[in-house]
Amino acid sequence: MTKAFRFSGFPFPSFVTSIALLLVSPGIAAAQNPLQPSPANQQSFPLLLLQQLSAIKAAALNDDYAYRQLAHLTENIGPRPTGSPQATAAAQYVAGELRKLGLEVHLQEVTVPHWVRGAESAALLEYPGMVPGTTQKIVLTALGGSSGTSADGLTADVVTVDSFEELQALGPDKVAGKIVLFNELYDKQKAAAGLAFPAYGEAVRYRVSGPKAAADLGAVAALVRSVGSADYRLPHTGMSTAAGIPAAAVTAEDADLIVHLAAEGKVRMHLTLTPQKLPDETSYNVIADLKGSEHPEQIVVVSGHLDSWDLGTGAIDDGAGVVIAMETAEILQRLHLRPARTLRVIAWMDEETGGSGSKAYTAEYSADFAHYVGAIESDSGAAHPLGFDVKATPAALDALHPVQSVLQSIGATVLEPTTYPPGADIEAMSNAGVPAFGLTQDGRTYFNYHHSAADTLDKVVPAELRENAAAMAVMAYALTNMKDPLPR
Amino acid sequence: MTKAFRFSGFPFPSFVTSIALLLVSPGIAAAQNPLQPSPANQQSFPLLLLQQLSAIKAAALNDDYAYRQLAHLTENIGPRPTGSPQATAAAQYVAGELRKLGLEVHLQEVTVPHWVRGAESAALLEYPGMVPGTTQKIVLTALGGSSGTSADGLTADVVTVDSFEELQALGPDKVAGKIVLFNELYDKQKAAAGLAFPAYGEAVRYRVSGPKAAADLGAVAALVRSVGSADYRLPHTGMSTAAGIPAAAVTAEDADLIVHLAAEGKVRMHLTLTPQKLPDETSYNVIADLKGSEHPEQIVVVSGHLDSWDLGTGAIDDGAGVVIAMETAEILQRLHLRPARTLRVIAWMDEETGGSGSKAYTAEYSADFAHYVGAIESDSGAAHPLGFDVKATPAALDALHPVQSVLQSIGATVLEPTTYPPGADIEAMSNAGVPAFGLTQDGRTYFNYHHSAADTLDKVVPAELRENAAAMAVMAYALTNMKDPLPR
Repeated sequence: MTKAFRFSGFPFPSFVTSIALLLVSPGIAAAQNPLQPSPANQQSFPLLLLQQLSAIKAAALNDDYAYRQLAHLTENIGPRPTGSPQATAAAQYVAGELRKLGLEVHLQEVTVPHWVRGAESAALLEYPGMVPGTTQKIVLTALGGSSGTSADGLTADVVTVDSFEELQALGPDKVAGKIVLFNELYDKQKAAAGLAFPAYGEAVRYRVSGPKAAADLGAVAALVRSVGSADYRLPHTGMSTAAGIPAAAVTAEDADLIVHLAAEGKVRMHLTLTPQKLPDETSYNVIADLKGSEHPEQIVVVSGHLDSWDLGTGAIDDGAGVVIAMETAEILQRLHLRPARTLRVIAWMDEETGGSGSKAYTAEYSADFAHYVGAIESDSGAAHPLGFDVKATPAALDALHPVQSVLQSIGATVLEPTTYPPGADIEAMSNAGVPAFGLTQDGRTYFNYHHSAADTLDKVVPAELRENAAAMAVMAYALTNMKDPLPR
Repeated sequence: MTKAFRFSGFPFPSFVTSIALLLVSPGIAAAQNPLQPSPANQQSFPLLLLQQLSAIKAAALNDDYAYRQLAHLTENIGPRPTGSPQATAAAQYVAGELRKLGLEVHLQEVTVPHWVRGAESAALLEYPGMVPGTTQKIVLTALGGSSGTSADGLTADVVTVDSFEELQALGPDKVAGKIVLFNELYDKQKAAAGLAFPAYGEAVRYRVSGPKAAADLGAVAALVRSVGSADYRLPHTGMSTAAGIPAAAVTAEDADLIVHLAAEGKVRMHLTLTPQKLPDETSYNVIADLKGSEHPEQIVVVSGHLDSWDLGTGAIDDGAGVVIAMETAEILQRLHLRPARTLRVIAWMDEETGGSGSKAYTAEYSADFAHYVGAIESDSGAAHPLGFDVKATPAALDALHPVQSVLQSIGATVLEPTTYPPGADIEAMSNAGVPAFGLTQDGRTYFNYHHSAADTLDKVVPAELRENAAAMAVMAYALTNMKDPLPR
C-alpha cells in the first residue's frame, strides 16, 4: 500500500475492516464482524484498556482545550519564527500550561539560529510591451536563510528555467549575472487527488536546492515559483540551502507573468531583499512528563513543533501539532488515567530552520532511546485525521489493530508503514529503532496555506482539531498502557 | 423570478425551454419542442439571421482573439488604474487593435481623477497576551480615495463594530480618536450558493460608507473587513466615499485577529497609509464603430471597462469585458457580416473611481440615445456565462427568445428582467430608455479575486472566455440585425 492509497477511498486494507468496532462494542460488532481479535491482541488490550481508550476518544471529541491553546499561541503570541522572542515566549507559555496540568516540565536549552526577514520587493523594469515610464510589481518573499541584496537592491535580467537540467543546459554563459527563476509547477491536480505530499516533494527540490544551483553558475539571485496550490498571489517561504545569493519565492501568478514576458523578449528586474542572519539565540524545547506508574523509564513521546514561519501565525504548521500533544496530557489528567509508562509531551523548537531542537534533544537523551516505546509527531496540519504513518516492524503494526478499531468511528484508521522516519523531530529516535508515528491528515488543502501569511487560526476547523487530539491521545495511551511494549 | 433563481439549477422559466433549439435546428427541434415560435419572432429572426447567429457562436467558440487581447492588456500593459499611464496606453492599444479590424475609432477625451497608492502597513503595538518587545503585522490595503496618514503613520486604539447601528450606539465618546474596524462578514455560503452579488451588496456598504460614518464620529482612521470570500490573507480594495481620514481594507484573517484580541482587552495599532490624490489626467474612452448598412444611426453598444484596480492586473475586472466586446467586432469582420445597424464597441475609462468616462460619453452623446437599440456591458468577470440581466420592456424580452435558443447550447439562456441599469457605464443609456444588457457570469468565485492582487490572467479560463464572447456577439448581432429594433 503506497501513500497514494491513503486518499483513494480505500484508506485501509481489508484486514483492518474485519476487526472494526469489534473490541469497542463487542456485542454489536460481533454480529457485523465475524472475525475475532487475535489472542495476542486480546492479551495486550484487555477490556479495561479498550474502555479507557474509548473514554479518551470521547473526551477529546467533546473538548476545546487544544483549540483554546492554539488560539493563544497563534493570536496572542503570534508568529513564532526560530530565534524570535515569540518562539521563546511560546515555549515558556506551553511549559506553564503543562505545569498547570501537573506534569514535570523541563525547558531544555537550545541554541538556535536567528534569521530575520527584511524589506522585500521587486518590480519588472523592462519587458516586451511595457508602457514607458511604468514598472510592474512582483510579489515575492525571501526564502529562509536567504542572503540579502544591498538596501538599494540589485537589477539584472531574468532567465527562466523549468528544471535543473534546463539550468545546466544554459550553462554559466547564460546564467552568470542573471536572476534565475525556477518555474517548477506544484501539481495541483495531484494534490487535489490526495497526493499533496508527493506533489510538494517534487516541487520543493527547487526551493531547497535551486538557489545553490543557480549561484554555482554565477547567478546574482534566484527565484522559485511558490510551492503550493493557492492562486491568491500568495508567496510561500521555507528553508533553502545556503547559496550566498538572495533567494525568494514568487507567487504562481508572478511566475506565470515572468515566464510569459520572458518568452517574448528581455525581462529586467529590480530586486530588493534585506534579510539578516543575526547572532544565535538561546531558546527551548519543552519536555513535560506524566510519569508512568509501572515503567517510568519507558517513554512514549507525543509532540509537535513550536516554531513557525514568520509570515503567518503558524496554526497548521505547527501550532496544531503542539496543542494536540498537549491535549493528550490534559485528557489523561482530567480522566485521572495514570499511564503505566511515561507520557512525554515535547514541544520542539526549530523544526523549520535546521532542527537544532531535535538535535539538542538527541544529544542529551539518545542513550535512553532504547527504552522508548514510541514517538508520535503531528506536523501535517489540522485537517481531518486519517491515521498514522508508522516506521515500525510488521509485528508492531499488527499489535495496533485494536487502536484502529477505537479510531474507526472518526476515520483515523490508517497505519501506513513507511520506510522513512515519519516526522522531522523524531527522526533520530526512529533511526534508533523507536517505533515512530506521524499523525497524518487530509492534506489536500495543506499546501494552500503552508509557509504563507495565510497559515492562521481560521484555517483550523475545531471539530477536525478535536479528531486529531482524539487520534493522538488514543494512540499514545495505547502505547503507554498496552500490556507489552511494541515489538521493535 | 429573483436573481437567486439564476443559479438554482433551473436557470430560466419554462416558457424558454419550450422553444429551445427550435429555430436553430428546426427539423430536429420540432419533434422535441412542440411549440412554434411566435409569428413576431419568426418575422424578426428570419432563417438567414438565425444561421448567422449560429455561425457567430461557432466562430467565437473556436477563437482565442479575446484571450490574446486579454493577455496583452493584463500582462504586457499591466494594472490600469484610472489616471495611470497604463490605463491611457491601454486605451490607445485597444483603439489601434479596433482600427486594425477596420472600425472607425474615436478616442474620446476624458478628464479623470488620479489617486495613487503609497506605502501601506500596520502593526498591533499592544494587545492582550502580547510578547513584550514584539508587534504583530496587520495586512491591509488602502481603499480608493483614502486620505493618508503622515509618513510616520498614526497610532490609536482600535474599536470594532459589526454594523452601522453598533457604531452609532457607541457614539462619539467611544469612537473619537480611535481606529474603527467594521467587521461586516461577506457571506461566503450565500456566494457559494449563487448569490455572490447580493452578498457583495450587503458587505460593500461598509467599504463605501463606513469610513465616512466613522469620521463623522471623530475616528482617526477606518478599517473594513475585506469584501470577498478568499481566505488567503488577501486584502480587497475598492472605492470609498471621501471621509477625510485614512481608510483601508484588512484581510478576513486580520479582522478576525483584531476582533478576537479586542474582545479580550485593549488593542493599539500603528497605521501607515500614504496614498495621494494627484492632479486630474486626460485619458480616453475608446469608441469604435462598425457602421450599419441600413440604419447607421441606430446603435448597439457592446462594452466593458478598461480601467482596473492597481493591485492586480484587472483580468476579471474588467479586461475580460473589454476583450469580449472587441471580439464581437472581430468576428463580424472575419465572417464578413456587415451589421444592418451600427455596432459600437466602447472600452470605458474610469468605471472604478467615479465613472468619468461614462459621464463624458453621456455629455457628448445623450441626444442620440433615442436612436440606440441596445447597450451591453460585461463587468462581472469571465466565468461561464449564464445570460443577461436586462432592463427592457416585457415585449423586448419576449422578442429575444430566439437569441436564447441560439445560446442554449452554451447555457447562456438567462434573460433576467432587472429594475436597475445592469451595468455602471450604461446606466445613463438605460435610464434614457435604451434596452440595457449586463452579460452575467457564474459569480461564485468572482469575489475571491475582485479588486485584489489576485485578479490576474490565470483566473480566466480560455474556454469560458470564448463562451462569453459568443454570448455577447450573438446578442449584439441579433440586436443589430433583427427586423425591427427592440420595442422600448
